[in-house]
Amino acid sequence: MLVIGNEILTGKVQEANVAALATELFGLGVMLKRVIVCPDEPETIARDVNELRARFDLVITSGGVGPTHDDVTVPAIAAAFARPLLRDPSLEARIRAHFGERTTDGHLRMAELPEGGELVLGAGTAWPLLRVENVWIFPGVPDIFKGRLLAFRERVGLGTPFHTRAIYTRADEGDIAALLERLEREHVGVTVGSYPRFGDPDYTVKVTFDGQDLEAVHAALEACRSALDVALIVRIDP
Amino acid sequence: MLVIGNEILTGKVQEANVAALATELFGLGVMLKRVIVCPDEPETIARDVNELRARFDLVITSGGVGPTHDDVTVPAIAAAFARPLLRDPSLEARIRAHFGERTTDGHLRMAELPEGGELVLGAGTAWPLLRVENVWIFPGVPDIFKGRLLAFRERVGLGTPFHTRAIYTRADEGDIAALLERLEREHVGVTVGSYPRFGDPDYTVKVTFDGQDLEAVHAALEACRSALDVALIVRIDP
Repeated sequence: MLVIGNEILTGKVQEANVAALATELFGLGVMLKRVIVCPDEPETIARDVNELRARFDLVITSGGVGPTHDDVTVPAIAAAFARPLLRDPSLEARIRAHFGERTTDGHLRMAELPEGGELVLGAGTAWPLLRVENVWIFPGVPDIFKGRLLAFRERVGLGTPFHTRAIYTRADEGDIAALLERLEREHVGVTVGSYPRFGDPDYTVKVTFDGQDLEAVHAALEACRSALDVALIVRIDP
Repeated sequence: MLVIGNEILTGKVQEANVAALATELFGLGVMLKRVIVCPDEPETIARDVNELRARFDLVITSGGVGPTHDDVTVPAIAAAFARPLLRDPSLEARIRAHFGERTTDGHLRMAELPEGGELVLGAGTAWPLLRVENVWIFPGVPDIFKGRLLAFRERVGLGTPFHTRAIYTRADEGDIAALLERLEREHVGVTVGSYPRFGDPDYTVKVTFDGQDLEAVHAALEACRSALDVALIVRIDP
């Protein structure tokens, strides 16, 4: 995922799309492996897109697709693919229908896409998503980003979803470190995570078990449950 | 900034330290140029640390410094610098004083640092920050991360802080795109940002003016104010 926007890097805006995408992909059985946040700089965006599309199966960009001078994502992606930027007639017609005589050059920038790009329509999208090969171009506004995930899901389809279960404990993280290391070694295909919490009267460490094989996830969780002192277990979820 | 943690990439946890660091650096006059989020993989962390420390003046890492098997940041940074991992006697003494006979190997992993690393104590830190050359190793828990920023600030010191002002408008973003592009061109050293908001009865576009020269920021904002139809201006902040 490439998140584009000075507003994130200056602290003006709390980023929200990484969590939305990560949750969606986890449910689809797709592992999010890397996120980069970069400024509104065309050369930086182009270089990052090229790095990511070579290394990973899918790349999602977030932000920089509006009508103003700081919206440089689409031309930067055209540059990354060394393709010309073309004005799509169907997008131009939709924009002119909406803005009528008030249509500006700024509005019409939103009708441009790199040559060979595809417009992907789907559930939850009043406006198409842009895809250029394995690069999907999402808008940055969180509500709209989330809506477009539906169209993305329809096209990308479901893999083997990841499952996650958790034990909330009152253990000390250092005390259970050796146990967790052994569990991860013995339960192949299950990732064991340990997340401490400070100053919470409810629990001190949340231990998570993630994997695509639900039985293996159950087995790892049960092995942990039986190894822990029962007084340290707050609850199991789900 | 390098954010380390499977919990971010699986959507289990909403990342919070990027915004805290970005806001702090903006006030210090340091521009945050790049954020990478990567999994708990030692080779990935080492490669990313080496890329970032070569390209930028300062690198801040967040996460992966606890006592469990998924806390691999410190050994990965030692590998990035090709330095051995040493146990620091003062940290070991503090850990043993705290945990006494219950001290485990997991706890003692938190006493390790790459050879030549520095322990930085300061305001707001009960526990030192680790620094290896231009790489600063922060814990991932948001409250603790924020506390350690005080010690970081004491050491890094203040540059020329960035200033930001904003006009909240009821303009259409496409209508003002040409104006904003001209303002950024004419006001050198001021970055003009345009952030649309949908479905908010208060405003439609927030226009921001950022720069290290406060007079130039004022001038750009005033030029924008006088060019906009007064009926479109909701408020100016600050």
